[in-house]
Amino acid sequence: MAPTAIHETLGVTASKKRPDADSATRETGESIRLSARSAAYTKQTSGAAPTYIQANLIILPSKYASDFRILCQRNPVPCPLLAESAAVGSWDALRSWIPGVEGTDIAANVDLRHDCPKYMVYQDGVLKTSHCLNIEDKWTEDHVCFVIGCSFSFETALTAAGLMPTHTAHGRNAPMYRTSLPLCPAGVFMDATYIVSMRPYRKRDIEKVRDITRPYVATHGEPIDWGWEAVARLGIKNISLPDYGEAPVNPSGTELCPGEGSGDKELVPVFWGCGVTPQEAVQRAGLEGTVFGHAPGYMLVLDVRDRDILQH
Amino acid sequence: MAPTAIHETLGVTASKKRPDADSATRETGESIRLSARSAAYTKQTSGAAPTYIQANLIILPSKYASDFRILCQRNPVPCPLLAESAAVGSWDALRSWIPGVEGTDIAANVDLRHDCPKYMVYQDGVLKTSHCLNIEDKWTEDHVCFVIGCSFSFETALTAAGLMPTHTAHGRNAPMYRTSLPLCPAGVFMDATYIVSMRPYRKRDIEKVRDITRPYVATHGEPIDWGWEAVARLGIKNISLPDYGEAPVNPSGTELCPGEGSGDKELVPVFWGCGVTPQEAVQRAGLEGTVFGHAPGYMLVLDVRDRDILQH
Repeated sequence: MAPTAIHETLGVTASKKRPDADSATRETGESIRLSARSAAYTKQTSGAAPTYIQANLIILPSKYASDFRILCQRNPVPCPLLAESAAVGSWDALRSWIPGVEGTDIAANVDLRHDCPKYMVYQDGVLKTSHCLNIEDKWTEDHVCFVIGCSFSFETALTAAGLMPTHTAHGRNAPMYRTSLPLCPAGVFMDATYIVSMRPYRKRDIEKVRDITRPYVATHGEPIDWGWEAVARLGIKNISLPDYGEAPVNPSGTELCPGEGSGDKELVPVFWGCGVTPQEAVQRAGLEGTVFGHAPGYMLVLDVRDRDILQH
Repeated sequence: MAPTAIHETLGVTASKKRPDADSATRETGESIRLSARSAAYTKQTSGAAPTYIQANLIILPSKYASDFRILCQRNPVPCPLLAESAAVGSWDALRSWIPGVEGTDIAANVDLRHDCPKYMVYQDGVLKTSHCLNIEDKWTEDHVCFVIGCSFSFETALTAAGLMPTHTAHGRNAPMYRTSLPLCPAGVFMDATYIVSMRPYRKRDIEKVRDITRPYVATHGEPIDWGWEAVARLGIKNISLPDYGEAPVNPSGTELCPGEGSGDKELVPVFWGCGVTPQEAVQRAGLEGTVFGHAPGYMLVLDVRDRDILQH
């Protein structure tokens, strides 16, 4: 495929495969949550319930809650804290961290033990259960939930602007990479690094992509780096082997490689802060007790919509 | 001097040279500002008006205000945004960014054109005037002020705990270094890196130093890195040649070098995010028009006190 046709092709693919931000859709944040709660919805949520904010979930023993909250406050690009349990042990009520937005606006009818399509369970820092449907049997009254913004939220806006991510166009999970970029430490959370999600774009579209995603301050915002040089700069070993999600593809659905297009039409990787970051930070901290997270790509979908929290 | 005597010596030096957080002092944030406004107070502010929050000041043409605000929100450790002008062109009223704190609580009687002891003036990205006493002659109705937390704020707490920074003990400015650690970009603010301030501590005191400074989320919080290995990790070329401030000293006032003390008594550099970061980010962005900043070390002292904004 000629590189000049990249976004035209993406646009066509988009209209065939997914509703865009302007299309009517019956999916809402609540409908996805209820469906996940009944174990009917078990797939990843990229592209689900357009304009509803999607979120990462981390659930910790209460003794780590203060350090984790400060970790998020110090590293808001990969760890944008939207809300937390209204109280220790609360799985059905949220306290908002978004100015001007109440906890009940973020998610009113919520069961944080069931409402992600899939979960991960860690015991004493070691992954014990992968992609389970709920965590009710291991939940305790000492657990605290943290709800963290997810970049799926701005993908709808990119798609509406004719810049659908290639992984969305091909029904895949986003590629996510471990980097060498350090997080600012907070208490027990030390030696963690950024995880980034990646979407390839043409060089000439990067400023537009930056402008579209910049207002999404609560869901990772604009990219942190871009270009093929950024791969080494971020300490990513192999762009074809992401640490989470699926391998990156170019607009035609084949493997993403350097050299597609030239000049300002060159297709290059663009990297965003990723909400898997806090989950890996939690793993590296080797916390005692039981820790839960959503399975990467299987997010908590909220009631709050992107237009409610955009910043201009 | 024997390394075991480091903090005992600091304690003695402290009581001779500076009031600590518990001592009565007539200095307040307002008294320092009024004194600076009348050009009576012209020295650096480290240790001045203990417990009153000190701040960095950046003043930009309004067209850059949105990008700069997002830069701060994305990089709160080096750029903790406390407040900004209540409106474009306002130098005497602030809008607070600290939850639960009003603009008038941050600084009620304020003239942001005069109240730092010294200022820097940049024209089209180039430093034009260094260490001037006020900026009234170059102020325009299109300027917007940003007030950013400063690490001087937590030095009082360190001193009260018997951990007075060596530069304070010897009446010097803190050493500050340019690093290779990238900021998350925001709009026109790209390719900027962290500036860090440094205070040497014994290895065995680092956890205590972290605990004391962690609640100061609005004024850089806990260190971002520490140890002699951190010097290379942060891309600092020469610890004896800081890019801002004065060369670092050990507790006896002589040059800081590796190898003072051994084991957990070894004296090592400890690095914090530094409020000079946004000033350098502004310089690197090559902004058009006139930009103002405080002179490094010559801060804006506020009405708000550290106990009002500590987070536990």
